[in-house]
Parts: sequence; C-alpha cells; structure tokens
Amino acid sequence: MRDEAIESGDQSATATKWVYSFGGDGTEGNASLRNLLGGKGANLAEMARIGLPVPPGFTVSTEVCNWFYANDRQYPADLTSQVDEALQRLEGSLGKRFGDPSDPLLLSVRSGARASMPGMMDTVLNLGLNDETVEGLAAITGNKRFAYDSYRRFIQMYCDVVLGVDNGLFEDELETVKRDSGHRLDTDLTAEDWAEVLRRYKALVADALDEPFPQDPRAQLWGAMGAVFGSWMNQRAITYRRLHGLPADWGTAVNVQAMVFGNRGDDCATGVAFTRDPATGENVFYGEYLVNAQGEDVVAGTRTPQHITLEAREAAGADLPSMEEVMPDLYRELADIRLTLENHYAEMQDLEFTVESGTLYILQTRTGKRTATAALKIAVDMANEGLISQEEAVRRVDPAALDQLLHPMLDPDAEREVLAKGLPASPGAVSGKIVMSADEAERLTELGERVILVRDETSPEDIHGMHAAVGILTSRGGMTSHAAVVARGMGRACVAGAGELALNVKEGTLTARGRTLNTGDVITLDGATGDVMVGAVPTIEPELSGDFAVLMGWADRFRKLGIRTNAETPHDAKVAVSFGAEGIGLCRTEHMFFDADRIVNVRRMILAETPDESRAALAELLPLQRKDFADLFRIMAGKPVTIRLLDPPLHEFLPKTDQDMADVAEAAGVGVASVRARVIQLAESNPMLGHRGCRLGITHPEIYETQARAIFEAAVEVGGADQDPVTAEIMIPLAFSKAELDLLKKVIASAAEEVEAQSGVTLNYHVGTMVELPRAALRAGELAETAEFFSFGTNDLTQTTFGISRDDSASFLLEYERLGVIEGDPFVTIDQSGVGELVQIAMERGRAARPDLNLGICGEHGGDPASIRFCHEIGLDYVSCSPYRVPIARLAAAQAALSLDEGRLGSA
Amino acid sequence: MRDEAIESGDQSATATKWVYSFGGDGTEGNASLRNLLGGKGANLAEMARIGLPVPPGFTVSTEVCNWFYANDRQYPADLTSQVDEALQRLEGSLGKRFGDPSDPLLLSVRSGARASMPGMMDTVLNLGLNDETVEGLAAITGNKRFAYDSYRRFIQMYCDVVLGVDNGLFEDELETVKRDSGHRLDTDLTAEDWAEVLRRYKALVADALDEPFPQDPRAQLWGAMGAVFGSWMNQRAITYRRLHGLPADWGTAVNVQAMVFGNRGDDCATGVAFTRDPATGENVFYGEYLVNAQGEDVVAGTRTPQHITLEAREAAGADLPSMEEVMPDLYRELADIRLTLENHYAEMQDLEFTVESGTLYILQTRTGKRTATAALKIAVDMANEGLISQEEAVRRVDPAALDQLLHPMLDPDAEREVLAKGLPASPGAVSGKIVMSADEAERLTELGERVILVRDETSPEDIHGMHAAVGILTSRGGMTSHAAVVARGMGRACVAGAGELALNVKEGTLTARGRTLNTGDVITLDGATGDVMVGAVPTIEPELSGDFAVLMGWADRFRKLGIRTNAETPHDAKVAVSFGAEGIGLCRTEHMFFDADRIVNVRRMILAETPDESRAALAELLPLQRKDFADLFRIMAGKPVTIRLLDPPLHEFLPKTDQDMADVAEAAGVGVASVRARVIQLAESNPMLGHRGCRLGITHPEIYETQARAIFEAAVEVGGADQDPVTAEIMIPLAFSKAELDLLKKVIASAAEEVEAQSGVTLNYHVGTMVELPRAALRAGELAETAEFFSFGTNDLTQTTFGISRDDSASFLLEYERLGVIEGDPFVTIDQSGVGELVQIAMERGRAARPDLNLGICGEHGGDPASIRFCHEIGLDYVSCSPYRVPIARLAAAQAALSLDEGRLGSA
Repeated sequence: MRDEAIESGDQSATATKWVYSFGGDGTEGNASLRNLLGGKGANLAEMARIGLPVPPGFTVSTEVCNWFYANDRQYPADLTSQVDEALQRLEGSLGKRFGDPSDPLLLSVRSGARASMPGMMDTVLNLGLNDETVEGLAAITGNKRFAYDSYRRFIQMYCDVVLGVDNGLFEDELETVKRDSGHRLDTDLTAEDWAEVLRRYKALVADALDEPFPQDPRAQLWGAMGAVFGSWMNQRAITYRRLHGLPADWGTAVNVQAMVFGNRGDDCATGVAFTRDPATGENVFYGEYLVNAQGEDVVAGTRTPQHITLEAREAAGADLPSMEEVMPDLYRELADIRLTLENHYAEMQDLEFTVESGTLYILQTRTGKRTATAALKIAVDMANEGLISQEEAVRRVDPAALDQLLHPMLDPDAEREVLAKGLPASPGAVSGKIVMSADEAERLTELGERVILVRDETSPEDIHGMHAAVGILTSRGGMTSHAAVVARGMGRACVAGAGELALNVKEGTLTARGRTLNTGDVITLDGATGDVMVGAVPTIEPELSGDFAVLMGWADRFRKLGIRTNAETPHDAKVAVSFGAEGIGLCRTEHMFFDADRIVNVRRMILAETPDESRAALAELLPLQRKDFADLFRIMAGKPVTIRLLDPPLHEFLPKTDQDMADVAEAAGVGVASVRARVIQLAESNPMLGHRGCRLGITHPEIYETQARAIFEAAVEVGGADQDPVTAEIMIPLAFSKAELDLLKKVIASAAEEVEAQSGVTLNYHVGTMVELPRAALRAGELAETAEFFSFGTNDLTQTTFGISRDDSASFLLEYERLGVIEGDPFVTIDQSGVGELVQIAMERGRAARPDLNLGICGEHGGDPASIRFCHEIGLDYVSCSPYRVPIARLAAAQAALSLDEGRLGSA
Repeated sequence: MRDEAIESGDQSATATKWVYSFGGDGTEGNASLRNLLGGKGANLAEMARIGLPVPPGFTVSTEVCNWFYANDRQYPADLTSQVDEALQRLEGSLGKRFGDPSDPLLLSVRSGARASMPGMMDTVLNLGLNDETVEGLAAITGNKRFAYDSYRRFIQMYCDVVLGVDNGLFEDELETVKRDSGHRLDTDLTAEDWAEVLRRYKALVADALDEPFPQDPRAQLWGAMGAVFGSWMNQRAITYRRLHGLPADWGTAVNVQAMVFGNRGDDCATGVAFTRDPATGENVFYGEYLVNAQGEDVVAGTRTPQHITLEAREAAGADLPSMEEVMPDLYRELADIRLTLENHYAEMQDLEFTVESGTLYILQTRTGKRTATAALKIAVDMANEGLISQEEAVRRVDPAALDQLLHPMLDPDAEREVLAKGLPASPGAVSGKIVMSADEAERLTELGERVILVRDETSPEDIHGMHAAVGILTSRGGMTSHAAVVARGMGRACVAGAGELALNVKEGTLTARGRTLNTGDVITLDGATGDVMVGAVPTIEPELSGDFAVLMGWADRFRKLGIRTNAETPHDAKVAVSFGAEGIGLCRTEHMFFDADRIVNVRRMILAETPDESRAALAELLPLQRKDFADLFRIMAGKPVTIRLLDPPLHEFLPKTDQDMADVAEAAGVGVASVRARVIQLAESNPMLGHRGCRLGITHPEIYETQARAIFEAAVEVGGADQDPVTAEIMIPLAFSKAELDLLKKVIASAAEEVEAQSGVTLNYHVGTMVELPRAALRAGELAETAEFFSFGTNDLTQTTFGISRDDSASFLLEYERLGVIEGDPFVTIDQSGVGELVQIAMERGRAARPDLNLGICGEHGGDPASIRFCHEIGLDYVSCSPYRVPIARLAAAQAALSLDEGRLGSA
C-alpha cells in the first residue's frame, strides 16, 4: 500500500510519514526501523527512547530517497510541511530557533544507510550559520574565534558538498591568511584572522558562483539534504555497494541533528569508545578522548588521544591523564551509559560522545568491529554472562574470521612493500626464500631453510616440494587450481594466480612492478589477502583459546550437517580429527602414487605392454597402498573413510622433459623411444575432459582392482576384534552412467570376496560415486540404483556446468566479477542457480531411487560458509573440506541451522 | 493375459497356442504375426494364404523360445500335443507319413526371428531319414545316389547342429572314400560310394557318442527344435544382436516344413530372384537359377548360375540358357508369382524357389536388400505406379544411404589392401598422394596433384590444406574432431582417429600393420567405412537421378522441421542451397580469420598492447569480413543467416614453433620475445573450457564490435531496394548467463545504430545465443529474456554434459561401446536422456519466457537421422547441418514427421 502511494505520488488517501523526530520532546523511531531510518537514525532514536543524552533532531526516511530517485530528483509534496513540523519541534525542545540571529540553532546533516558505508556519502556540519547568526554564536559563546572558525568550516564544507566549489581554492585562501599573519597552525589563528578568512571565502564563493553564499538557513538545510540524497548515487557509493553486495533500492536516510561542540573550551571534549576491548575482547571499557576538540581531531593524529580509563592509562604507562581523572563525574555517566548500551543491545558497541560545556552527549552507537579473537571471546563471554544465548553466540562469530585464529597473520603495524597481488588461495602469512623447483624446496628445507615455492603453476609432481615449503606462490591458476587446493589441504599459505609475476625459471628470476628478485631472496606471502611482499614482514602467531573449543562445542549442538574432511595423509587426517572432523569425505588416492618410492612402479604400470606387466607393477604398489589405508583407518578409528579410486589421467604420472624421460626409461627398464611414444600417445587436448576417473578404471580394471584389494586388506588388518570396525566407502569418480558403476562395482566386489575368502573377515564397505558431471546429476535416479552414496564433486561440476576450466579461468573471471557478470567466483561459493539446481535434481532423483542414499559434498565449496548454508538448506547429509577449514565448516553449519530455524519461526 | 499365463506356467485356464500350421489344408498365421512367428514363418503363412505354392509345414512360435529360456530349457507341457497335431495335419495335406519306411515325409527345421539374422542360427534339412526310410526314399525317387547323399548330409548336419560331433571328422571320412574310390568331386561318387560314406558316418557317430545315430524321426525332430532354440543364445547370435541392437527377449521361432528337392533330376531346379533389379532399382524381374541343384549351389560358386529371364541373358551375352527358355511354363508361373508378391507386399521382394519334378515351390520371401540408387528408384517408381503412397515412398529410403548418392564410393569389385581402420568421419572414397603439411597439400594441388592430408590431428591453421586436399586422414580425434567437422562441412572425405597409424612427420613416413609408406605414396580413403587402403582403389562416381529431386520434394511436403546448413564460405553456401538448405544455421566466423591475407592482422590484434592498436588491426580486417558476409547474404537471398561471433580462444591464431614465432614477429613488427610471451600467456590447460566464446567478446569488446559492424555494413550493401532484404541472426556463443548477453547485445546494438545512422537503412537483425553449456540450458528462462533465438550447440553441450573432450575421447569411447556402457557415440547421435533432457529443459524455460523464441540445433547432430527425429519430437524449429547432409536431414525430418503421425494414429 505504502509503495503504491509512493509510486503514484498520490498522498491524499494515505498520508505517508516521511520524517521521524528523536530526542527532546519525543521520539518517533526505534532500533527496529533500521530499514526505514538507516542504522544511524534508528540507533539515535533508540538511544533517545532509553533515556540517553542524544542531541535531538529528526530523520528523513530512506523512502524519501527512493521517491527522490523514482521522481527525477523531486521530493514528495508533503515533505516540506513534515520537515517544518519536525524543525519546530526541535526548536521547541532546545528553546532555540533556526536562524535566530541572537542564539541560533545549528544543525548537522548526515547520511545514514541501512548498512554502514563509511566515508562514502556526504555530511554537512554547523548548518544554520550565516553573516548574522555567526555573530549571535560569537556572543552567546563569548568566543569569536570559535564562531568564525565554525562559520568558515561550514562554508567550506557546504561549498564542497552542496555547491561543488573546488575545496582546494579554500585551502589556498587559508594558506594565504596563515602566511600573511605569520601563523603556522589553525589553532594559532586569532578571531581577526578567521574574520579575514571568512571575507576571502565569501568573495571566493561569489566569484565562483556569481552569487553570494546562501544566507537563508532553510535554503541551506534543503541544499544539504539534497546533497546527501544525491551522494547515494555518486560513483564512490555505487562502487562501494557493488563491492559489498548492497542493493541500490535500500536508499539512505538523512539525519538532521542539533549541533553540539566539543571544541568550545576546556569544559568540552570528544571521544570514541568501545564497550569491550575490540582487539582482545576483554570485558573492559576501552576508548580515547580529547579535551576541547572535535571528532575528527581524535582520529586525525595531530593530537595524541588520551585514555578514557585510569586502568588503561596505567597499563599503557601514558603521561596524559585519563577522562576518569580529568572529568570524573562525566566519566561515571559515560561508564553507566556503556553498561546501559551493552545491556540494551546485548552486543559490543562502538560509540561516539561529545562533552559540550560540561554536558555529555552521545552522538552515535553501533555494533563495534573487532578482531577474530575478540569476536570469539565476546561471544562466549556474553553467553556465559547470560547477556545472549549460546545460539546467538554461535551466530555472532564470522566463520571466515576463524581462519585468522588458525593461521599466522601479518603484524598489522609492520611496514610492507607489495611486489604483486594474487588470489588469497590459502590463508596464513609466511616469509621464506624463493625457490623454483620442488626438489630445491625439499633440499633447502632439509638444510633448515624456510622456503616459498614459486611456480607458474604446480602439478602433482610438486607435492613433496609444496609440503617442504612454508608457502606457495603461483602466477597462474584460480582459487581451485592444484596449488590452491593442495595448499589448503596441507594448511600451507598460498597466493595463486598472481598474473603480474613474470617468472624466468632458467635465470631464477621473478619480476613484477619493475622489480626483479632472485632465487634465494626472501619474500612474504599473505594468503588471506593475496599480497606478495618483498623481504620478511613480521607476523603474529595465532593462539587458540579455550573459547574456541567452547564455541565449537555449542556449534556442534546446533548444526545438522555432518562435517568431514578431505585428507589423504596421516598428518592431514590427524589435524582434521583434532579440529573435529567426523570422517574423511574425500581421500584422493592419486597422491599415494606420486611418492618417490612409488612413482617408478606407477610408471612401469603405465608403460606396460600387457595387462600382466601392468599387474606386476601394481603388485609392487599394493603393500604400500595397504599401509596408507591402514594408517588412515587407524587414525579415523571407525569413522567413515570415503576413498576415491584413481582419478587423474595417466599422463600426469609421466615425465615431461627429455632428461626426465631418459631417467624414467632407465628406471623402468625400457627404451626412451617407448617412453616418449607413450607420453605422446597419452597426451590430451583437454585433460579435464579426458581419459580419467572411472574411464581409467574401465579401460584398466587392474588399477581399481588393486586399489580395492589394498583398501580391503587394510580394513582386515585394522578392523580387528578389539578395535573400531573400519567403515570404508569406495567412491567411483567421474561416472555419467549406471553402466559404468555396474561394471566397476563388480570389480570391487570381486576383490572384496577374495579378501573375505582369504581372511575369513566380513567386510563393511559401501560403493558410491562422485557426482561431478551434469549427466550424472540428470541420471542420478539410475546411478542410485547401484551407488550407495553420492558425493558431489562440485569443483568439476562447476567446471562442466559453466564450461570453465578452473586452471584457465583467471584470464576472464576477474573481468566478469568486475563487470558484475557474476556475483563471485563460482569456484569459491557454489552457484546455486546453476550448479545448485543440478545438485538438487541429483538429490531428488537419487533419493527417489534409494531413500537412504547418503549425500555429501567434497568440492572446495565444502569449506565455504555460503555454500555450506546452501548444503544445509537443500538437506545434504554432510560437507567435506580441507582439515584447516573443519572448524569454519562446523560453525557455518551451525549458523545455517540456526538461521533456517529463525526463518521458520519468522514465517510461522 | 497371455504373458501371465506363460510366466505362471499355468495353461489350464487359457490354453496357449504355441504352434501355427501353414500351407496344405489350412494356414493359421499371417504376415502381421511377425513378432510371434518370426519373419520367415509369418511370410510363409502369408504366401500360403494368398495361394502361392508353399511347401506346407508349421511354425513353433517365439513364445516357446521365451518359455524355454524362462524355464531352464524345458518346453510347455502342451507343446508336444500341439506339435503332434500339426504334424498329423501336415501328413494329411501331403498324403505322406513321417517315418513311413516306404514313402517318408522329410522335414526341414529352421530358425526364424523377428528380424533377419543371416547365418547366425542353425538349420537341419532332410530330417526324418533313417536306415529304413532312406530305402523308401530311394525306391520312390528311383534314385539311390540321391537318397544316400541326402541321408549322409542329414547325419552330418544333425551331428554338427544337435549332437555336437566335430564336423571335420565327417569331412575326413568323405575324403577317405573319395581317395579310395578315385573320385574327386561329390558329384562323381556313385550310390555305392555314398553307401560306404554312410557306413563310415554311422560308425563314427557310434564311436563318438557311444550310441548309434538316432533312428526315431520324432526324436530327431525334438532334437533339431531344441538345437534351433538353443542357437538363439549361442555366442554368435548374442554378438549379432548386440551389434544390431536386437533385444534377446524377441526370441526365435522354429519353422518345420516339408522338404522339397531341387536336386532330384533335370526336371528339378532351384533359384533366387528379386522382383526388381536390386542394383539399379529398374522394374525388371531379376534372378538366377540352376537346374538339378540345391539352394547352396547357387551361391557357392561351384557352378555358374543362369539368368532367369531371356532379356537378362541376352543383355549379359551369356551362353547358358535362361529359365524362361528352359522351363517356359514354370517361368511364367514364377513371373506371375513375382507380380502377386510385389502387389501383395507393395515392396520389392527377395524370394527363393525350388522346382521339384516339374512343380514350383516358393520357399521364402522377404524384403529385398538394395543399393541406395535402387532404393530411391524403387520408392519413387512404386509411388508413381500407385503401389504405395508418397508418404510410404519417403519412409522407404534410408537417409544414411543418401550419402552414397552424394559421394564417390569404392568400386565394390575392386581389390583392396587395408592399411588401417579409423572412424568413418566424412563420406566419400578418394585416392591421392600422402602429404603431411597443409602448405604442401596446397602446393601440390596447385601443381595438379590429388593429395590426401595426413596428420595426427588438424587445427584451424590447416584449413587451406584441408580445402586443397581430396581427403583427410588423422591418427587422433573422434567423429566430431576438428578434422571430421571441417571435412564434412567441405564435403571432403575423411577418416579420423586411425590410432593404428604411426606418423613420423620429420621422416615423412606412415606406419601401420607392419607396413611403412612415404610421403608421395598413394593411398585411398573410404570415408563411409573408415578404411585406409594402400594404392589407388577404383571408385564409382555418384549420379543424382531425377528420382532424387522427386523424393526430396515429397519429403519437404511432409516434414515440419526447417533445414538449415552450417556454412561459412560462398562455395559451401551454394552447395547447401542447391541441396535445399533454407538458411544458414551456423556461420563460424573464425574461419574468416585464418586466411593467409588476414591472419597477420588477426595476430597484430592479439599482440596489441592497447585497445587502440587492437582496433587498428581489426579495422584492416573489417572490409574483408564485410565482403565475406555480403557474399553469403547474396547467395542466401533473404534466407536467414545465423552468424556466430568469434568463438575459439585467441591462442589458436598464434604460431606454435620457434620459426613461426619469428615469422609472425617480423610480420607484426614486434619482437620475438613478446610473441613468445603472449603465446605463453594465452596458453591454456583445457582450451575447450577456456577463454573463448563470449568470454572473448566481453574481455575484447572491440572484436565483436568489429564483427557486428561488418555484418551490418554487408547487410546494408546487399539488402538494397531491388533485392531480398537480409535476415541476419547474430549469435553469441558459450554464454552461461543473461548478464553476458545483455553486455554484448549492447555492443551489437550500438554498432547497428551507428551503421543505421550512417546509411539511413533500418536493419533487420536478431540477437540470440548458442546454448552449449549445461548452465545455459538451466538458466534458459533468463537467457530468453535477452536472446531472440537459441541454437543448441550440441557438440559442446555433449562435451560438457558428459565431461568428455571429443578430441580425447577415442582412447576410451570405443571401449565403452564395446563393453556396452554406451549405446553409441554421443557425438554422432544425441544422448536423449542426458543432453536431450537439457535441451528440453532449455526449450521449456526459454519458450515460457519468450513464446516466439526460435529454436534450432547446429551441432553435428543436426545431420544425424536419429538425432533429427529427436529434434522433431521435442518440437525444435529447425536443424542445421553440413551442406552435404542437407538432403539427409530433409529426408530424416520427413520420416520423423510421418512416423510421429503414424504413432499418433496408432495410439488414437
């Protein structure tokens, strides 16, 4: 109804309320009207309601903003009368009149959107001053200097924001006066100097605009309001909204508020405070203030701000007195307000205050930003204090912030020289020497060096070097490139796809932004931001507090999704279990084939001329694989272990250079020519869509047969009478049809029967498939007749659904994001409307065929909070992610469950 | 009801009729009972019904076969009584008794499935002979030699088929008797010799089986029937059914029929005949016969068969007399039967006859196999004769057979030595010299040589060489590899993916099956079979008769689907129009970039450092492209032309070898290092999923802008007042979102506005997209808000839906087909249940958003009859295929329409 009225412009039937007063004689809004009044306006109203000393004023609602843009930048007809009315009420509250030459009411005019958009939109202060009222202000405050300075600030600000006069011109005039008067600082200027500044400013305005600076306070007010509404669509604001995903139709409100001054003398002050320590989360009052100052002086750094509490001053060993000492009564009033606000909002607040002539005013309160550590501590503390529920505590911590708690981060105070920027592929901040080969990385690490492996891209052959290095840097590849996936799995810091870097591996040089580094030079990676820095930048080690375990425990109580991990080494599996993984959702067996003591036999198998030769080579690998699986089964102690049979194309295991081919030929006891021939024969144009996954299992059944046998023998070995029985889930990759699964399930079953016959043990295993091709999703009903579980391989499913190779996507996906073609990287957060629909189709059809079908996701999306929420909403059984993301996944899953519950309650 | 009775084995309620008599005293079956009686049995019954002289007998139905396999190879309880009854009726008809020592009834026992499975199953002749009845046969025929020979043949055949005694043992005994008697040929042996053979045969059987040869005729009959049913599941038959897609549950019938003998004397004869000439289709009686012979003698080649008609004998200048001369009465009777059969079946028949002692018998009739030419002529003639409708004529011609009419084919009589076998990628039989580079192909062709371009695989750089060559042979790639697609488009013969071939381009040698050829050696390709042959094999040129145009005209009347062509050169477009194309469904503009006079500017564009440099290079290309488009618009004369904007990744246009890079650097006026750097920068791991299609258009809008301008300027140039207005459909490739289309539609629209402003002409154009990614299909509803048409790019859609690169698929798809994992190559016939579902989803959602959305298909499937049928059924507007497949598509579309109508009538 309201919208219709706005659109038709017909206000006769239902008069729309556009303006909401707060403070003084009556408050019309409250905190729940954030959408209508913006964050600032809603909180001002709320504070006024609970009796806090808020300078009175009124808020022009966000609906005016929308009306304004829907109607060619005009205002609703009845806005004028509503503003007038609010202004009168304000005048009444304060006993002052707007434009009164003897004691003028002065106003601030500020924007205030639903979400905070710091610095994006415009503000005008001291509005209401003109040639007459400035004299009244001077008289009433007895401070000409203050009055003239206030007026010239207003002219400068108003011209900048409303009239579009170049601010630099004013600065020039000010400099001239300073030079002429021989003063260096603003504070040195006398009242007469400011009067001169004012004369020059007014001349400047008259010159630039061909008319004098507006003297009518009401015209000033409407000009300022128009400028604030106009700033909603300035380029800066548009860009900010795009980057933060804020819709344009939220609009901004305009807050018109009586001015209070912290700079009228030594009984004045201004400050900012947090109700708890935003760095540590400690339950102490934390803040800074300055006597006789304005808000911007606290943050500008020209004067050193002083502590608010004595305790903080003493802890810091600071000389300047605290507010608690200087203004003890006002401090006590502020400390009470701190408690009132926190109790009222049940959230840590960031507040601004001003003391004008001995009276305390609260200008703003909002939820305080905080570090990850603080977020965790505050949430747990507040729940323990009974201020919030455990559910709310779980909701309060951003899962992504946990990354900071699990990895070292750069010392925020350290100097840094950024050499290049890439994708933040795996978090952690590390420094080390540049190496350009995996072998070198391993060699130097054994000598005790910390190294960073720098490559155009990595391949499975580099695993040992990636493991040895403290960080990995690549010039190519995206968030799910080999380097990124493996680094996340190992918990190594990684910056991927830093396209600015030009590598010359032969020369051992690395060039970017006109600067060339050599192998052995030290660089620093910040895997959380994608920055690559020259030299060693100091880092801060993370510390896991007890709060972490407490919050995780609460999260586990609320979440519905199971959380598994993608792990294939004992180390990864142990890390994941320590982080709370409930099973392995993806054990990639190819990693078991690349070890130095195995690759020879893998290559013998590939180079074999007959199935028998191939089997002989595989037989050599069997005991090694059996041990790998046995280790994992022991660590997982009965938790399910999903093992994906060999997936990559065979050519990945073959050498690429002539020298390597010669080495391989010698090791495998065959001619170089036959190695080369096999390399050429196996080469593929698009290996991602090539002879891999179960296609290998079908053309080389002996490979899967051997893997299955190794799994089953390990299960027999570990699953003894006094131990937890092994739960093996054998996963067939890249299937697109039931027929593939049928063929391979037979191969697996026959290996199981043989092992059962030999051992006398009855095996507990399931055979399922990785749903990672669109056709598999569409034919899921048939697949589920054979498969006992599905694990969605959303990396490959994203690649095939979009037709995008993650290895090649960097060249255009960034541009796509910049242009807004895609909202985000679909390899980071699952594309719900494309890939997600296929996942849902597969779930529905799969469950229709097999109601107890177990459904999980093992792509990189399994560790992404937004994707986890989607997985929860559609009803998957579990997500699986890299070990270091397990806590993130637990928290995100809990939040998804809580938020869905909330949604249900809301709609009920 | 019947099925239930069979399954339960309960015959008490509804007695099942298992046995159907024909000929003699009454016929129970007819031609419509093919499923129950098999093809042979149904036709025998039908012929008996219309009064033709069929030796009487009975058919044991296919349901017995199914019962047999469902019940552990037992028979239904009441089968014995039904067989006995039928046998009594047969004895009554002929006045002979089975097993009668004085004048025995002899039987043949043959298989007869629903579809002909020539030579796959077993037959027993002369059944009913034993030591007693053979003497009766000798007495009654007065021919001991004939009787003994018949008995020994029976023993040999029965032992082979029923008793499993090695046939070689019998041949050895026969040889011994021949050696002992001094006779060389069977026909030289006397009655006494045959008696000796019989003694030895019976001794052999007794020795091999420990019991004598079965003397009870009834036991013989049940043995033979069991063997025929058993042969349904022999390996040979199973393989045949798999290869021909015949289901096992069709079962076979058993035909038991009175023997007639064409070899009892000179008043006996046997022959085969076609009611029209199966090679040319001429309406003449065509056939061969032999006096005093059995059926196998006609085909065995030991005696030269004689013509049936005098005319044929005279035309061939043959010495031996025709049947028309030797047996004029019987000939006239046969000629009448020819007309009766053709009129009755309204189809050309292939019949077998036997004359026993002056009496004519028809043993079999079936639809005659014929050449493509004959099929066309017969269909058109029969329709013109009023024998069949035009609809039926259209149904009768296999679209695939038209390929034979449009391309040269190998002389079927020519000798050939097959060097290797690949995929039949593009039809036509050609001979030429081996060349291994495109440049060499062009050079030699200019010198007047016919060459075959042999490569591991081809790329767009090879286009000029492929065009110059008469045929293309590759060792890698599948049915939709670059080589295959381009060759079909150009009408060049192509054998692709001949994996046996080992190419050594440096040495210029080609090795396969132990044989090495050199560049310059002549080879022959048969693109219809995939055979690669050594030397020049003679070929037959096709001749398009007037019948072709007539049939095509009828087809056009019945089809609903529009038929367009994939063409980008004037030559291709002209060919397609001459074949009846109704527009261009896919003009691939990348081909316009590879010409020698253009590639330099294309590369300058790619190597450009700034958008301006890039635009300058594109400006050079613009007039050339404008001419290309103008030529196509003129040829298409107002028919719609769908132009796909640039699709391949830019690296395809860059050189690969060091030398080429140096050349390019010089031509483009840049350093080699920067060429190399760009080549490396643009390289992709999976180009199929890379920076291509509209991704190029978005990151390099100047490319699409130039293309659009060239299209519009050409449209202005051609679409003058006195000419057909141009209908340009601009197609954006590889989109997965509406946002991409919106961005690029703007680029296109602004080019259109500029050209309209400059020319004053209002352009008639549409912007649409190629739906070739699963996400595009899923988001089709949104896409259709912007796109005015969809063209399904089912090549890429198949690649992404299956996750199979067509360039790499050969290594496993053949194995998948062999194992029955897939029914056929999904790049040849569309995968209805996966890719097809996505096409249907896209259609539904697209049409819901835009009811007049134009929908076509432009993948290779557009020329495949089975896929065309699917396109018709789901309701696409048109298919687009390579020029040489346009007639096939027209015919297939008509058949799809007729068959669907038939289906509707059938179910109504």
